[in-house]
Amino acid sequence: MARLAGYSGSGHVKLAAAVEFMHTATLLHDDVVDESEMRRGKLAARMLWGNEASVLVGDFLLGQAFKMMVEVASLRALEILSSAAAVIAEGEVMQLGAAKNTATTEDDYVAVIRAKTAELFAAACEVGPALASRPKDEQSACRSFGMNLGIAFQLVDDALDYGGTAAKLGKNVGDDFREGKITLPVVLAFRRGSESERTFWRRTLEEGEASDADLEHAISLMTKHRALEDTVKRARHYGAIATDALALFPASAMKEALEETVEFCIYRSN
Amino acid sequence: MARLAGYSGSGHVKLAAAVEFMHTATLLHDDVVDESEMRRGKLAARMLWGNEASVLVGDFLLGQAFKMMVEVASLRALEILSSAAAVIAEGEVMQLGAAKNTATTEDDYVAVIRAKTAELFAAACEVGPALASRPKDEQSACRSFGMNLGIAFQLVDDALDYGGTAAKLGKNVGDDFREGKITLPVVLAFRRGSESERTFWRRTLEEGEASDADLEHAISLMTKHRALEDTVKRARHYGAIATDALALFPASAMKEALEETVEFCIYRSN
Repeated sequence: MARLAGYSGSGHVKLAAAVEFMHTATLLHDDVVDESEMRRGKLAARMLWGNEASVLVGDFLLGQAFKMMVEVASLRALEILSSAAAVIAEGEVMQLGAAKNTATTEDDYVAVIRAKTAELFAAACEVGPALASRPKDEQSACRSFGMNLGIAFQLVDDALDYGGTAAKLGKNVGDDFREGKITLPVVLAFRRGSESERTFWRRTLEEGEASDADLEHAISLMTKHRALEDTVKRARHYGAIATDALALFPASAMKEALEETVEFCIYRSN
Repeated sequence: MARLAGYSGSGHVKLAAAVEFMHTATLLHDDVVDESEMRRGKLAARMLWGNEASVLVGDFLLGQAFKMMVEVASLRALEILSSAAAVIAEGEVMQLGAAKNTATTEDDYVAVIRAKTAELFAAACEVGPALASRPKDEQSACRSFGMNLGIAFQLVDDALDYGGTAAKLGKNVGDDFREGKITLPVVLAFRRGSESERTFWRRTLEEGEASDADLEHAISLMTKHRALEDTVKRARHYGAIATDALALFPASAMKEALEETVEFCIYRSN
């Protein structure tokens, strides 16, 4: 693994593993909370081993993650990652409150995905330079890269859940719709829609009466109002901020890889 | 709050709150996993706000707990508490594996309650003197006090779940039996029982066919084999170890309070 200048420890490997464990723990718990049956195209853990195991193994992974972080013995790294864990959990609770509420604004939505998704990207990116005792401006730049990449990632993910800007085979479309999740494509289509369209969104999302025909209608309304296109446009905006955050670093293969991550994240929507 | 000599910070308050948050988080998750309807004589949180909120608020409390611990900035305290969190989560997973297995030995059982209950008592007791930089023998003594108090507490709790050694009103008896939990009263009654009694335990606990009449029969078998009495006797043994662990400390009001905690913990079974 390439390293930042001025650091020769191995703590970054443990911290990277800790981030991965934290992430896996949230996925296990999310699938229980959302009653999801699939994860990454396969049966979710809870379908194979039950909700009990998913809750408890999630807790186990969180416990192991904190133990590994503590082993690295960097209070600054602990601060970054424990704050992130607290913010993520708060974001999940926020989302529970905001669920099925079509009055959600774009700002509300971004606040939720900032907390529940982007914060972990931000902490993961900040903790490396923090551990390497790099200057504060570099730490902030890396954090900002992660935060904006995370927001862009989630926006594209939310667009893909309605098929993205182009129809694609093999993608399980409409999960968010069936669960009544208010994501940016919905926020835009709802706000730009007529009163009768809003009645449709309220019935399907707030009252949970979403059939397959409703999903098709939802996608047609999103197309009409360019909601998916503009969701990806918003993602491009955050992606640009992420790339600019890296501008203060000199050119390097590592920097290029990070820039390509932003590109990949956004262009998978096509 | 009384303080240990040589320490004047306020970190102990944050650490105490962190322990309480960790504990509450495990209760929220336990009730989801066990599908419990009651907690401390009232409706469980999941009955009022749902499983989703219980999982996520548990995660939130864990996140807050770690954040508070990190604020105290003692790596030793972090080590103690994050190890405890990892052991507890591991204990919960172990228990899931051991559930409904009448072949569980007394040693298996004590290993489970050591991890899932007593470890948090131990960490809570160890972290105070560790933060106050007290000598290692005092830290170990406090840890040992907590560990053995925790085991004694859980043993008495398990006896009380079958009504304790004396009948009492107002106590919700038989929850463990109906859930097929293998606790020490069961381990003892099963081992001391005849082959036909073992068939009874297997049917009710492993196959989950436990009626109210079965519960009465289970209690009568426990009485016959003195299983509840001996469970409390075992608790008294661990209580004595806890009290002896404090012997190296000079007499004080604080020490007396800790000794009384052991007494209270065991004599509530009468």
